[in-house]
Amino acid sequence: MLKVGIIGATAYTSLELIKILLRHPEVKITYLGVRRTDRPKISDIFPALKNLLDLPCETIEQKEVPENIDLAFITLPPTISMQYVPLFIQKGIKVIDFSADYRFRDKALYERWYKTQHADSKGIETAVYGLPELFREEIKSTALIGNPGCYTTATILALVPLLTKGLVFPDDIVVDAKSGVSGRGREPREDTHYCECNENIEAYSVGGHRHSPEIEHILSIKTKQKVSIQFVPHLVPMNRGILCTVYVKPKHGITTGKAGYLALSDNDVHGLYKEFYSKEPFVRLKESNETPKTKDVTYTNFCDIATKVTENRIIVISAIDNLLKGAAGQAVQNMNVMFGFDEKMGLL
Amino acid sequence: MLKVGIIGATAYTSLELIKILLRHPEVKITYLGVRRTDRPKISDIFPALKNLLDLPCETIEQKEVPENIDLAFITLPPTISMQYVPLFIQKGIKVIDFSADYRFRDKALYERWYKTQHADSKGIETAVYGLPELFREEIKSTALIGNPGCYTTATILALVPLLTKGLVFPDDIVVDAKSGVSGRGREPREDTHYCECNENIEAYSVGGHRHSPEIEHILSIKTKQKVSIQFVPHLVPMNRGILCTVYVKPKHGITTGKAGYLALSDNDVHGLYKEFYSKEPFVRLKESNETPKTKDVTYTNFCDIATKVTENRIIVISAIDNLLKGAAGQAVQNMNVMFGFDEKMGLL
Amino acid sequence: MLKVGIIGATAYTSLELIKILLRHPEVKITYLGVRRTDRPKISDIFPALKNLLDLPCETIEQKEVPENIDLAFITLPPTISMQYVPLFIQKGIKVIDFSADYRFRDKALYERWYKTQHADSKGIETAVYGLPELFREEIKSTALIGNPGCYTTATILALVPLLTKGLVFPDDIVVDAKSGVSGRGREPREDTHYCECNENIEAYSVGGHRHSPEIEHILSIKTKQKVSIQFVPHLVPMNRGILCTVYVKPKHGITTGKAGYLALSDNDVHGLYKEFYSKEPFVRLKESNETPKTKDVTYTNFCDIATKVTENRIIVISAIDNLLKGAAGQAVQNMNVMFGFDEKMGLL
Amino acid sequence: MLKVGIIGATAYTSLELIKILLRHPEVKITYLGVRRTDRPKISDIFPALKNLLDLPCETIEQKEVPENIDLAFITLPPTISMQYVPLFIQKGIKVIDFSADYRFRDKALYERWYKTQHADSKGIETAVYGLPELFREEIKSTALIGNPGCYTTATILALVPLLTKGLVFPDDIVVDAKSGVSGRGREPREDTHYCECNENIEAYSVGGHRHSPEIEHILSIKTKQKVSIQFVPHLVPMNRGILCTVYVKPKHGITTGKAGYLALSDNDVHGLYKEFYSKEPFVRLKESNETPKTKDVTYTNFCDIATKVTENRIIVISAIDNLLKGAAGQAVQNMNVMFGFDEKMGLL
Repeated sequence: MLKVGIIGATAYTSLELIKILLRHPEVKITYLGVRRTDRPKISDIFPALKNLLDLPCETIEQKEVPENIDLAFITLPPTISMQYVPLFIQKGIKVIDFSADYRFRDKALYERWYKTQHADSKGIETAVYGLPELFREEIKSTALIGNPGCYTTATILALVPLLTKGLVFPDDIVVDAKSGVSGRGREPREDTHYCECNENIEAYSVGGHRHSPEIEHILSIKTKQKVSIQFVPHLVPMNRGILCTVYVKPKHGITTGKAGYLALSDNDVHGLYKEFYSKEPFVRLKESNETPKTKDVTYTNFCDIATKVTENRIIVISAIDNLLKGAAGQAVQNMNVMFGFDEKMGLL
Repeated sequence: MLKVGIIGATAYTSLELIKILLRHPEVKITYLGVRRTDRPKISDIFPALKNLLDLPCETIEQKEVPENIDLAFITLPPTISMQYVPLFIQKGIKVIDFSADYRFRDKALYERWYKTQHADSKGIETAVYGLPELFREEIKSTALIGNPGCYTTATILALVPLLTKGLVFPDDIVVDAKSGVSGRGREPREDTHYCECNENIEAYSVGGHRHSPEIEHILSIKTKQKVSIQFVPHLVPMNRGILCTVYVKPKHGITTGKAGYLALSDNDVHGLYKEFYSKEPFVRLKESNETPKTKDVTYTNFCDIATKVTENRIIVISAIDNLLKGAAGQAVQNMNVMFGFDEKMGLL
Repeated sequence: MLKVGIIGATAYTSLELIKILLRHPEVKITYLGVRRTDRPKISDIFPALKNLLDLPCETIEQKEVPENIDLAFITLPPTISMQYVPLFIQKGIKVIDFSADYRFRDKALYERWYKTQHADSKGIETAVYGLPELFREEIKSTALIGNPGCYTTATILALVPLLTKGLVFPDDIVVDAKSGVSGRGREPREDTHYCECNENIEAYSVGGHRHSPEIEHILSIKTKQKVSIQFVPHLVPMNRGILCTVYVKPKHGITTGKAGYLALSDNDVHGLYKEFYSKEPFVRLKESNETPKTKDVTYTNFCDIATKVTENRIIVISAIDNLLKGAAGQAVQNMNVMFGFDEKMGLL
Repeated sequence: MLKVGIIGATAYTSLELIKILLRHPEVKITYLGVRRTDRPKISDIFPALKNLLDLPCETIEQKEVPENIDLAFITLPPTISMQYVPLFIQKGIKVIDFSADYRFRDKALYERWYKTQHADSKGIETAVYGLPELFREEIKSTALIGNPGCYTTATILALVPLLTKGLVFPDDIVVDAKSGVSGRGREPREDTHYCECNENIEAYSVGGHRHSPEIEHILSIKTKQKVSIQFVPHLVPMNRGILCTVYVKPKHGITTGKAGYLALSDNDVHGLYKEFYSKEPFVRLKESNETPKTKDVTYTNFCDIATKVTENRIIVISAIDNLLKGAAGQAVQNMNVMFGFDEKMGLL
């Protein structure tokens, strides 16, 4: 049995992580760490866990590293996380970090967006980006994973097949993203107040969301071209789920049906995605004329994707659960790959 | 034109009050007071008001009373309100207070439940309880109104006809109340977080909600008997609306249809309510087999009521908008009565 | 591996049942039956199941019984179900039926409420009521289970400890119940339209809901006294979850704290429930001053219960997921008991 | 007093229309027509109207035109509406039609999208498109108005200033639109079922929504260039509100701050919109860094608009209430213009 700890146990993502790990046959949760000093039982924080996991949470203010764990999931906020991660790595404990602190291979880029010096230069250099669909081999042999963001996962999975094949302009991409409120975290603020979110939809961070450089960075690395996106996130009155509607421009004219030289049909694009993801256990392609619904992927680790060729664009729509494939589920998928378990274990 | 001020202008109830007053042909809002020092425009607090009311909010920390207003709506929290109300009254400004501070005729009772000494003995003695259906005549001639709470309004209107006629046991009453989240106010807290409220229903303050003594107090005074209720409020995932399901026991055996000596039928009870509220502009009785829906009363000042006689109980169900008939709408109804306007003015 | 079939596969409860069974290590779904003739794949009906279960649905209009299954879950509506159940029983296939058709030991009572003659006299006589907390031993040895309704499960679990001990009046009970919309089934009707349910709460079937006699019937049998309840269900704007707020009267005076002769304290009642359910894997008792939230039990098979003693009543609040402990989860719990599996298997 | 009738009185838009007209000081509703034969009172269809409008609905199957009305609002579905409209026009009754039947000046275009021959050639030729911000003068003197669709209104108001000035490419426009469920109408269908809409967001009609040609048609006429858009609508779990996020490309390079030859800054674009809409009573521009929220415009006739210049695009976001500025409110605004009332009358 793998012994795991969760550092930052009171986050929404941690609750979901605990639920998955309790079902995982090869794992035992032996440590919960929090940045508060009153040692509550995790089931007092999340009554849903009562009788399932009544473990007390330990204070991590002094940055002691727990003994006897093989793997730490760190769910602390960005810029805090990197103060803890190296302590674990040094003790030989593998780490899957949920923050943005280990998602960039370019330290300067991170520092520009997160407005602080990175505290762990070695870590950021050696960390692997934890999107198994793109970096499975690297994940197998790393000790430190930067677990992708929720918007990032949905956007990258929507775009990577077309960009990899070089079929679309890498600098003419619109990503209109919609997220449930749990993406904003558990802290009570005006913008998470029920009456402010309910019966409302709004855009936010227009022209400057932090997931935008992460998406561009990873896609540029992976598809070997400078990728630039126009990304606008929206807040939707629902607990969980992300839908990304992605608009790209084909390099060559598209026809819808009548085959033309170098033109792409609906079938071409659908076939491309089908092949690209043919061996992926958690990517599902919708048939033509179907569109993804977040309700079909919430409470699962799936990413559902549909493609549609229109008169002068290709539209790709992807849906995930922001807390699962966009966070805790993906972390467990990464753990499964790192430790040689069946990649789907605990996730179906 | 009546010149009115609102003290506590950033509350949800104040937003609704402003919307109504902007439509009221006899009123002009000339003053907005807040307990903060940065003088924001009210339309910056509530963007819905942009171009409708761009008045700046004045700081009330120093407790200066604005010149040139005829009426003040005070929407401050209980125990704070009574520190401001006498200042207005002394200057000859009439007051409609939204807190509990002027809803009790019994100072000791107030002090027991609100755990503080009352700061305005004279005020609490002379204030009138602002439920026009019960105290219209007193409202006409008072300078100070304690505007009823939302649960209280819905419960009292449901119970008062049967209690007035002495047809039910006054100490065997169950009130199961359900409220939308705006009833909890605008402050971000764990229990107003979207993800905590959405897809959830729960009871709270079981066995000790502060509206319970208010209901008992007013019903006891009005119906001249000691009324005692079992009141349990619930939080429902919706913005606004209150539904009260009230279970009472008839003093004499009930039959449903077959008339018996002193027995009450569905028609008897329905007729009683119909007559009791026959002249009320804001109470609507459902026909037999219909039940009130909060969606039919939200954004209105109506209270919808249905009655149903069962084998051994009478069930009364009432629905109001907690922010309107349960707060701002009722306050304007009171204002209309106080100043001799048509009672419905601005409210339809 | 147990081979199971689901008859009525397109119901919301069937979707939940399939999700649980796919995780159950001792079961294989080999047959899906529907009352339509176009043989859709179940994953076309419920895209959430894509890649998980792409089995086609078979037409059951001709009432052929599938070969090679050991257990049939029947999720057809009441009065339809009893036309199919005997066919399975005759072939030696065990049945867990979700409708009301096998929940009454008294045929006449069933016929009065469902306004039709019962088509399977032998079945209704021999069926066991599938609430393991009350009838575990009988469930072990039966071939036919009437799986309880959702309101019924929540109400009975809330009431049975106090009634069993004879501490409360069995004919003075108010049950105010609140349910999410999935309890109304998948059929599009005016009362399941999004805009009619959202931002609304309402009571329905006031004074005549069909779950009322089921609750009284089972509680009367189990606690050996004539139990009579006042039951009013409400529709709440959320997908799933049921909360029952139950008001009962103690036979002897209650004190809250000051111990008196024969009086019940908060601790007494809490202790009684704690002991009554001490060995139950799916009943969790809230500590004093906590109340159940439906969000803590949705997507689980738990029933959370709190008790509170007030001046002249005992209030019991219970919460379940109407689709799980109120339907599909309970059915699997019954299956586990019937076939000797660990009772929690597939359900945590 | 203007006497008005509503034909198609049971639509959601009709309910909102009635509520507005009841407040309008110059109008009296004297006729309600429906396509059913049982003559229900409108307050039986919509209990919210009880005591406000208890008028019976008349059957319109025989296509008799009511006597004594000055204006008919027709809220029938497309292709049905045009069978009724000419009957009214012939009798000298002015018409505001809510369907698409009178929104196109190009009959062939209508017939291609609505897959039927247009039944009223004269009407479609002479009708005026009822968007006062664009066609106020024509509205003043017409007898027949095609009232715009909800998506159309939000999209056109977002785009028309930039297109009119020729600052952006008219054929490189992405419109990502989000609507509440009332936009789907009152008919119960699988896609309006509460449990299918709640906790879900999805795109629909990808690459072929009927509002797309309407938007292109009106913008092309008004801005005298061939406008072509990529339009994808989404269904959001809320009752009302539309948010359109519009992505356009400037013809000349954009800088954000540093002024360059022909480059557009945030201030430039904001200033352009401010001037364009300076005299419009129902268009409100957000300040820089604010974004529109649907909750600020629902239950009002406002359209809130924000603009943002990014590295290589201009983003325009608009929000309206689909039932008001997107339907009933706009119709009343049109009526006010047609009959010479204050344009805001009844709408604030």
